[in-house]
Amino acid sequence: MIFELTVLGSSSALPTSTKFPSAHVLNIHERFFLIDCGEGTQIQLRKAKIRFGKLNHIFISHLHGDHVFGLFGILSTFQLLGRKSPLHLYAPSGIESLIRFYEDHFGADDAYPVILHSISGRKVQMLFEDKMTEVLGFPLKHRVPAYGFLFREKKRPLNIRKEVLTKYDLSVKQIREIKEGKDILTDSGEVIPNTGLTEPPYRQRSYAYCSDTMIYEKNISLLHQVDLLYHEATFLHKDQKLAKLTGHSTAKQAAIFAKKAQAGKLLIGHFSSRYKKLDELLQEACSEFPDAESVEELKTYRIDPVRIVRE
Amino acid sequence: MIFELTVLGSSSALPTSTKFPSAHVLNIHERFFLIDCGEGTQIQLRKAKIRFGKLNHIFISHLHGDHVFGLFGILSTFQLLGRKSPLHLYAPSGIESLIRFYEDHFGADDAYPVILHSISGRKVQMLFEDKMTEVLGFPLKHRVPAYGFLFREKKRPLNIRKEVLTKYDLSVKQIREIKEGKDILTDSGEVIPNTGLTEPPYRQRSYAYCSDTMIYEKNISLLHQVDLLYHEATFLHKDQKLAKLTGHSTAKQAAIFAKKAQAGKLLIGHFSSRYKKLDELLQEACSEFPDAESVEELKTYRIDPVRIVRE
Repeated sequence: MIFELTVLGSSSALPTSTKFPSAHVLNIHERFFLIDCGEGTQIQLRKAKIRFGKLNHIFISHLHGDHVFGLFGILSTFQLLGRKSPLHLYAPSGIESLIRFYEDHFGADDAYPVILHSISGRKVQMLFEDKMTEVLGFPLKHRVPAYGFLFREKKRPLNIRKEVLTKYDLSVKQIREIKEGKDILTDSGEVIPNTGLTEPPYRQRSYAYCSDTMIYEKNISLLHQVDLLYHEATFLHKDQKLAKLTGHSTAKQAAIFAKKAQAGKLLIGHFSSRYKKLDELLQEACSEFPDAESVEELKTYRIDPVRIVRE
Repeated sequence: MIFELTVLGSSSALPTSTKFPSAHVLNIHERFFLIDCGEGTQIQLRKAKIRFGKLNHIFISHLHGDHVFGLFGILSTFQLLGRKSPLHLYAPSGIESLIRFYEDHFGADDAYPVILHSISGRKVQMLFEDKMTEVLGFPLKHRVPAYGFLFREKKRPLNIRKEVLTKYDLSVKQIREIKEGKDILTDSGEVIPNTGLTEPPYRQRSYAYCSDTMIYEKNISLLHQVDLLYHEATFLHKDQKLAKLTGHSTAKQAAIFAKKAQAGKLLIGHFSSRYKKLDELLQEACSEFPDAESVEELKTYRIDPVRIVRE
């Protein structure tokens, strides 16, 4: 029941000697989702000891170089490793010509399929779902079409307490109903409330990625009470004009956004390379939202499973 | 009078957690030449503290991803840093469509000019020369058109000994002739031999880059007595069939090539990621050519200026 984020790259457009461009990888129950793919992502993945074979879904926020230049290398490495399973790539419309270029110049005839999920429009949209997880794409506000991503666990069936199965002679239908939250009526006419039959459920964990973007208030309700929020904070608030001009946020703005969304924790990054004292960006954020942290590359941020306390 | 090589990336097609793909940078008298540009080259350049503004010439051996995927990032960074001066790019024919793709998708209207020098054919050709340096491109033997590069200092005018200028009343013409190696005839009819007038000249230093390639004997005479030879050694000799199949060399073959060329020193790299004990590749090379070394990333290999001893 793992739900953990590993930050692979945290720089803004200009990487430094210690910071790679944007890339995050989210592990939900051993399914790995790569979010953005700046230059060097594959090298960082190796450092983080994440197996390439476990990576089947890549989400790209927007088509600026510092978020996509690592794609070519990773596509090529998959090929060299003999990948056969499909790779799903979710990215703003326009990704088609990048992939066509790659395939024309560096692809192989026997390559694994790359399945493109092109994103457009200004609506929140379900990009991926399986039994346990869903991923929503939502519009950001940048110089080019850009999307944020909300990853969250789905509501899971309740777990029946071990002793219940031995105590009662349950039918398949009853077991299904208990898992759905229903009470049962025994043959003797007794009603057993569901809370006596099942373990308290786990809270549904969530992670949201917002980069690159100015503050976009419309997303506050969608991200209400998100456990972990990554929001870019390219500039200090004294440079807010520059932030606006370039379609970015300040640390203060990111923190106010997190406060309004009642996020559990805020991660900031994508700092402009103009700042030498990065502490100032974090201080600025913390003054508005104390549970803020500057992302560190190759650090893992884990959200532990928490059972909901029943009244 | 610096002549030094810094290795930025040394892996073969699959980078590892500690090895970047191919990239070397050669500093000749504070003029920097980048040779190949694998993914992450710009990050390695920053680590090596090489200023981007000093880089005006990039040489690409061949158009496989592990030798070019860093180009997009570096072109983009030049743009973000406000570069205005032209960038010269020497690469096999086909580079045009890579650069067109970059410019179409990531370029800016006010971008600095990228001047393409497309290489084709099977002849040795002069790619660059200025007063002090010349760069020759020569064909390699790989699965796709590939070229090696020989960087060498040009023969420089002789330096006149300080005391000569005060001792003799020389005309401008005489000074020029002395620098060219001629003796002089004084007014009193005395012949002063050039060796008495000038400092012993410096040996012309040279560096050759051969990757990716099978052994190509035709290059031995061109690279005769090269000071520093980098030759790929992707495989151990026990895997020579695989080397041939994929268009690569073994460590033993690279060393025999260095011996035949009478190279001053051999550097090997581009080791296949299949080998865990890289010492074996070096041992194999050293058994044929003792002055061999496995390249280390961010290490600098300096060739000191040496004056020629006059008889």
